Amino acid sequence: MIKFDSDYVEGCIPEILEALAASNEEQTSGYGVDPHCDNARELIKKACKAENADVHFVVGGTQANVIVLNSLLKPYQGALCADTGHINVHETGALEMTGHKCLTLPTENGKITAADVEKAIVNQRDDGSAEHIVQPGAVYISWPTELGSLYTKKEIQALSRVCRKYNVPLFCDGARLGYGLASKNCDMKLTDFAKYCDVFYIGGTKVGALFGEAIVINNDAYKANFRYYIKQHGAMLAKGRLLGIQFEQLFTGNRYLTVAKHAMAMADMLADALKEKGYSFLSEPETNQLFPILSNKKIRELQKNFGFSLNGAIDKDHTAVRFVTSFMTKEENVKALIKAL
Amino acid sequence: MIKFDSDYVEGCIPEILEALAASNEEQTSGYGVDPHCDNARELIKKACKAENADVHFVVGGTQANVIVLNSLLKPYQGALCADTGHINVHETGALEMTGHKCLTLPTENGKITAADVEKAIVNQRDDGSAEHIVQPGAVYISWPTELGSLYTKKEIQALSRVCRKYNVPLFCDGARLGYGLASKNCDMKLTDFAKYCDVFYIGGTKVGALFGEAIVINNDAYKANFRYYIKQHGAMLAKGRLLGIQFEQLFTGNRYLTVAKHAMAMADMLADALKEKGYSFLSEPETNQLFPILSNKKIRELQKNFGFSLNGAIDKDHTAVRFVTSFMTKEENVKALIKAL
Amino acid sequence: MIKFDSDYVEGCIPEILEALAASNEEQTSGYGVDPHCDNARELIKKACKAENADVHFVVGGTQANVIVLNSLLKPYQGALCADTGHINVHETGALEMTGHKCLTLPTENGKITAADVEKAIVNQRDDGSAEHIVQPGAVYISWPTELGSLYTKKEIQALSRVCRKYNVPLFCDGARLGYGLASKNCDMKLTDFAKYCDVFYIGGTKVGALFGEAIVINNDAYKANFRYYIKQHGAMLAKGRLLGIQFEQLFTGNRYLTVAKHAMAMADMLADALKEKGYSFLSEPETNQLFPILSNKKIRELQKNFGFSLNGAIDKDHTAVRFVTSFMTKEENVKALIKAL
Amino acid sequence: MIKFDSDYVEGCIPEILEALAASNEEQTSGYGVDPHCDNARELIKKACKAENADVHFVVGGTQANVIVLNSLLKPYQGALCADTGHINVHETGALEMTGHKCLTLPTENGKITAADVEKAIVNQRDDGSAEHIVQPGAVYISWPTELGSLYTKKEIQALSRVCRKYNVPLFCDGARLGYGLASKNCDMKLTDFAKYCDVFYIGGTKVGALFGEAIVINNDAYKANFRYYIKQHGAMLAKGRLLGIQFEQLFTGNRYLTVAKHAMAMADMLADALKEKGYSFLSEPETNQLFPILSNKKIRELQKNFGFSLNGAIDKDHTAVRFVTSFMTKEENVKALIKAL
Repeated sequence: MIKFDSDYVEGCIPEILEALAASNEEQTSGYGVDPHCDNARELIKKACKAENADVHFVVGGTQANVIVLNSLLKPYQGALCADTGHINVHETGALEMTGHKCLTLPTENGKITAADVEKAIVNQRDDGSAEHIVQPGAVYISWPTELGSLYTKKEIQALSRVCRKYNVPLFCDGARLGYGLASKNCDMKLTDFAKYCDVFYIGGTKVGALFGEAIVINNDAYKANFRYYIKQHGAMLAKGRLLGIQFEQLFTGNRYLTVAKHAMAMADMLADALKEKGYSFLSEPETNQLFPILSNKKIRELQKNFGFSLNGAIDKDHTAVRFVTSFMTKEENVKALIKAL
Repeated sequence: MIKFDSDYVEGCIPEILEALAASNEEQTSGYGVDPHCDNARELIKKACKAENADVHFVVGGTQANVIVLNSLLKPYQGALCADTGHINVHETGALEMTGHKCLTLPTENGKITAADVEKAIVNQRDDGSAEHIVQPGAVYISWPTELGSLYTKKEIQALSRVCRKYNVPLFCDGARLGYGLASKNCDMKLTDFAKYCDVFYIGGTKVGALFGEAIVINNDAYKANFRYYIKQHGAMLAKGRLLGIQFEQLFTGNRYLTVAKHAMAMADMLADALKEKGYSFLSEPETNQLFPILSNKKIRELQKNFGFSLNGAIDKDHTAVRFVTSFMTKEENVKALIKAL
Repeated sequence: MIKFDSDYVEGCIPEILEALAASNEEQTSGYGVDPHCDNARELIKKACKAENADVHFVVGGTQANVIVLNSLLKPYQGALCADTGHINVHETGALEMTGHKCLTLPTENGKITAADVEKAIVNQRDDGSAEHIVQPGAVYISWPTELGSLYTKKEIQALSRVCRKYNVPLFCDGARLGYGLASKNCDMKLTDFAKYCDVFYIGGTKVGALFGEAIVINNDAYKANFRYYIKQHGAMLAKGRLLGIQFEQLFTGNRYLTVAKHAMAMADMLADALKEKGYSFLSEPETNQLFPILSNKKIRELQKNFGFSLNGAIDKDHTAVRFVTSFMTKEENVKALIKAL
Repeated sequence: MIKFDSDYVEGCIPEILEALAASNEEQTSGYGVDPHCDNARELIKKACKAENADVHFVVGGTQANVIVLNSLLKPYQGALCADTGHINVHETGALEMTGHKCLTLPTENGKITAADVEKAIVNQRDDGSAEHIVQPGAVYISWPTELGSLYTKKEIQALSRVCRKYNVPLFCDGARLGYGLASKNCDMKLTDFAKYCDVFYIGGTKVGALFGEAIVINNDAYKANFRYYIKQHGAMLAKGRLLGIQFEQLFTGNRYLTVAKHAMAMADMLADALKEKGYSFLSEPETNQLFPILSNKKIRELQKNFGFSLNGAIDKDHTAVRFVTSFMTKEENVKALIKAL
C-alpha cells in the first residue's frame, strides 16, 4: 500500500534523527528554556527578519491554534474564520472548550475576504444588541488553506489592513506553511507573515519534523505571559529541547524550503499528469494537497494499492478525493500512482 | 555542570533512537491507529494482565491528568487530591480550565488516606447544602507522589475500596511509575494498578522515553469516546506512531523496569551516602527523588558544579533541596556529587 | 412613545403583584424548595399531563438554555440548532462559555428539519475523522422560533422520531410558548411538548410574569443532579419562592393561555391591518412577533411616536421591522399604530 | 415554625412592593438600560461618593462573584480568598466552571490578612516554576465574612495597599454589606469601599430587596465591556428595570442602612441574651449571623419550633448553630427564641 493520505504518514528528515542521537546524552533544562530552543528561536527570527518577535514551540497544530486564540481573545469574543477552517471543523471543538465561538464566514476555495471580515466586525459593533452577540476578537486564517489554496500577498495585506483598522489581531495557521512558500503560485515570503500577521505559526510536523510547530508573535501586545497559556493547555513539553533540536535542523541553511520544494515537485508532477489525463479538480491545485474528481470505479480500483481520502461525492458516479505529497514522498510512488490513474 | 534537577534533563534509551530511525520511512496512518501503537497496546495490556483494558497514548503528564479527569467528572464535580498533588500545584490550573475544582485533602508525605477520602465524600453528600458544594467525582493520587513517597499495597487497596463503595473512580498518575516499581520499598506490582485503579497511566517521559504517557482504562464505564477527549485537548499526536514506537521499546522484555532500576541504584547510592554523612531528609527516601536538608553554605558551594532545585527553607541556615536521578544518570556523576557533599 | 420593541417592556399580570404582596411576610426556605414552588410544580405537571416530569425554575431564558444544554451534552458534544437560533446569535456565546459548540443548520423561516438533523448526526458518525468533529449531542429548537414561526405537530413528531432513533435529546426553548399555543395557526398542545421533547421550558418572562422560566424534564435520563447545574450557573434564586409564586398564578385555571391570547388578538389585529394596507412580510405572521417590510420614509415617521426594532435592510428604500405585542399590550396603542401606518 | 435559617426567608420591604405595583404599566427598554436603573445608579454613586464608578445590577450573589472575577482574571489566573470564602465552598465551583482556581488562604474568623496575600503573590512570582503555578490575579474578600466577622478599616486599607502594590485588583463581596455597616463594631463607611476596593457589590437580596446586587466598579481599568460578561453569564435580566426599581427604593434617603439597623437590633438583642445565659460562640458576634454553641439536647428541643442551621459539631454533646436575623425579623419572634433558650 502506497499512502497519499496525508503529509504525516512518515517520520522526519534524516538530519533530525542524527541531531536527536547526537544530543541524546546532553543535559539541559526542561520546558523549552535550553540552548537548542534558544538557538532555534534565533534562526527563526532571522529567517523571518523579525528580531523582536517572541518564538514558542508546541507539539501540534491544534495546540498552537487554541493556545494562540485563547491568549488573544477576551471571554466574550470569538474568532472569525472560514466555515471550512480547521478550528471550526476538525478540532473537536477545542476552541469552544476554552469558551470561544468560531464566527464563521462563507468561503470560496477556503479563503475569507477582507470585505467579509470588515462587515462582520462592523455589523456586530453597530448592532443595537451588540452586547448579546459574540464580539469578533481575532481573525484566523490558514495558509495554505484546508483546500490547499493560497491567499495572495494582496489578499493578506487587505486582511491585515482591516484587522489593524479595528484593532483585531490577525493569526495565521501555518501548519503547511512550507508547502505554500514552495508553491509556484506563491507571491508571499516568510518575512511577509511577520510583517502582516500579529501571530502566525510555522508548521514542522507536516514539513520535515517528527512533530512541532513554531509560534511567532510579532505584535508586542500579545507577548506577555504566553508560557502560562502553553503550560495550562498541557502543551509545555518536558524535554522541550526536542522541539528546539528539530527546528534548528529545519532552519539550518535553506532546509525548510528545500524539503518543502520536494513535496511540491511531487505534487506538481502528479497534478500535471492528472490534468493531462483530463481529470478535473474540486479546487485548483496550488500546494501539496490535490483534490481531483475521479469516477467511483477508478477509486475502487486505486484503493487496492493506494491510500488516499475521499472528500465528498460530486454526483452519483464521481467523488472528489485528496492526494497529499510530503517532504518524504518517493518519486517512484508518484509514478506508480500516475500509471494507475 | 552536572544536573540532578529532574528526570527529564536527558534524551532517551538508545533502543528508542534506533527504533525511530528504523521506522522512519514506513508509511502509517496518523493519530495513534497504526501497527506500532497497536503492538504497544498489546504489550502493555499483557504486562498489566489487563486484556480488556483500553490503552491510549499522549505526549505528556498534564495532558494525561486533565484528559482523564475531564472524562471522569461531570461538570459539577471535582477531583479529590493531596494538597501537594501535581494537578493542584504545578499545572497552572489546567484542570480548572476545563471547569473542575481540585478538592484538596491535607497530606503527610504526599499521600492521602482512604479515611479522609471517605469523609470528604460523605460530608459533601450529607451536607444540607450539598447542591451548593462541588461533588467529589474522582480521586486523584500519584504513585510515586510529588514527595517521592509510595502508597503501600494496603493503602491502595483501602483507597480502592472506598472509591468502589461510593462509585467514585480512582485515578493514579504514574508519571514516575517505573521508579516506584523499582524501589526497594515497593510492595505493588504493575498488575495491581490494573486491579485497584479505574484508570492509571504509565509514565514514559521520565522513565526512558523522549516523551509519552500510556493511559490504561480498566473500568468499562470510562472507556467510551475517550479519543474525542484526546483530540479536543489538542493531545492527539499527528504522527501518533512515535508514541507506539517508544512504548514498544519500553515494554519489550522487562526493559521498563530495568531502566528504572538503574535510576534507583543511583538514587540509593546517593541516599546512602547522604545518610552516612549525617544529612537529614524532608521526607524519607523511597524513590528517585531525594529531599535532603543542606546548609545554605553547602548549597552555594554545590551550585557551582551541580544543578538541583531548592524545596523550601527549613530555618535561616538550612534549606531542603531536591536531587533527582534518572534512567540515564551516570555513576561517575553521582560519585562526583557524593564527593562534593 | 408607545413601545412595540419586545414582549418585556412592561411588568406582569396584576394577580402576580397581588400574590407577591400577600406572601411577603411568609417565611420559607430558600433556593426553590418551598411550598409555592412545590405547588407550582404540581400545577405545571398537571397542565402538561406529565406526572413524572421534574420541574425547575430559573430566572431567564439564557440561563434555561445553557443549563439544560450543559446538563445534556458531554464535553465533546455540541447542540444542533438553526443558524438563526437564539443560542447561536443572541446569548454572547453563553453555550460556548461552557465548552460547547453550536452546530448550525441552515433554516427557512427559523425552523430546522428532521431530515437535516438526521443528516448532520449521520455525517458526523460516519466520517472517517469522526473523532476530530464535534458530535451532535442534543437538538435545540425554539417554539415559536426567533422569526415567530411555529413548527407543526407533524414537524415536531418528525424531529422527535429522529432524536429518539439516534438517542440524541430534543430540547425546546419555549420563551414564547404561550404565544405559540394561543396562535390561530397552532396545532400543538402543551401536553405534546411533554410527549415529544426530552426537555422543554415554559416561558414566564415574556408571557405574564415579572421573570421566570419553568424547565420541564420529561426523560428520566436527564433528571439527575439538575439542581447542581442550576447552582453552578449562578441561577439558583435565593428567594426561590418568587418563581413559584409567579408560576402558581400563571397556571391557576387557564390563565397562562388566556393572557397569551390577548397578545395574539392584538398581533392579529395589527397583522390584518398591515395586510389590508398592502404591506408584505419578511416571514408570514404566526405569533406575536410581526416582521412587516416598510419604506424607510415610513419608518422614520413612525419612530417619532413608536418604539420597534429594525430587522435588516430589504433594498435601499425598504427595511424589515419587528413589532411585538404582549400580554399587556393596550388595544388603543395598537389602533394608534395602525392609524399611523 | 419561626425561621432563623437565613436572611432570605421573607420577601422585601413594603416600599419595593409599592414601587413594583406603581411602575407595572410603564413601558421601558429591557436589559438594564431604563430610567429606573439609571436613577438607581445615580443614587448609589452618590451614596458611595463615587461619581466615576460604573454600576451594574444582577439578580444574585453567585452571579456577581463569578462575573466580576471572570472579568478581572486572565485565563491563567486565580482568585486569592479565604478557605472559608463563599466562592470556594458554596457556589458549586461556579468560578472553576469559568476556568479559574480559588487560591485559598488559611483564615481565622473568616478574614484573610494583607501579609498572607502579599506572601502568596510574591511566592508565586518568585518561584522558579512560576509558569506552572496559577497566578494570583485578584483578591476576593467578603464583608461581612461567611462567619459574620468584619474587617476593620485598617485591615481593608492594608489589603488595598498590597493589592495596589502588585497591581492585583481587590474585590469585595458585599452580599450582607448593609448589616456590616449597621453593626456596632463597624468602622467602615460605604464610601470607604469605593475608596479601597477596585470592585465591590452592595447586596440587595439579603438586605431589603426581593433580589438584586449592585456591582460598583471603581477602577477604570476594569470597566470596559462589562455588560458582555453579564449577558454571557445569563445574568442580564430581560425586565432589567426590576433591579433598578428595587435599588431606587433601597437608596432613597437612608433606607438601606435603616432596614439593616433593624436586623442588627434584633441580632444584638439575641446575642446579648445568649451571652447572658452563658452560651459561648464559634465566632464573636459582629453582624446578623450568630454562631452560638448549644447542647445537642437543647438543639433537638428548639428544632420543634424554630428553624436554624447546624454549623459543625464541637464535641459529642455540643454543636455550633447559626441564627440569622434580617430586615424583616419580628421582635416577638426573637423574644420567643430567647425564651426557648
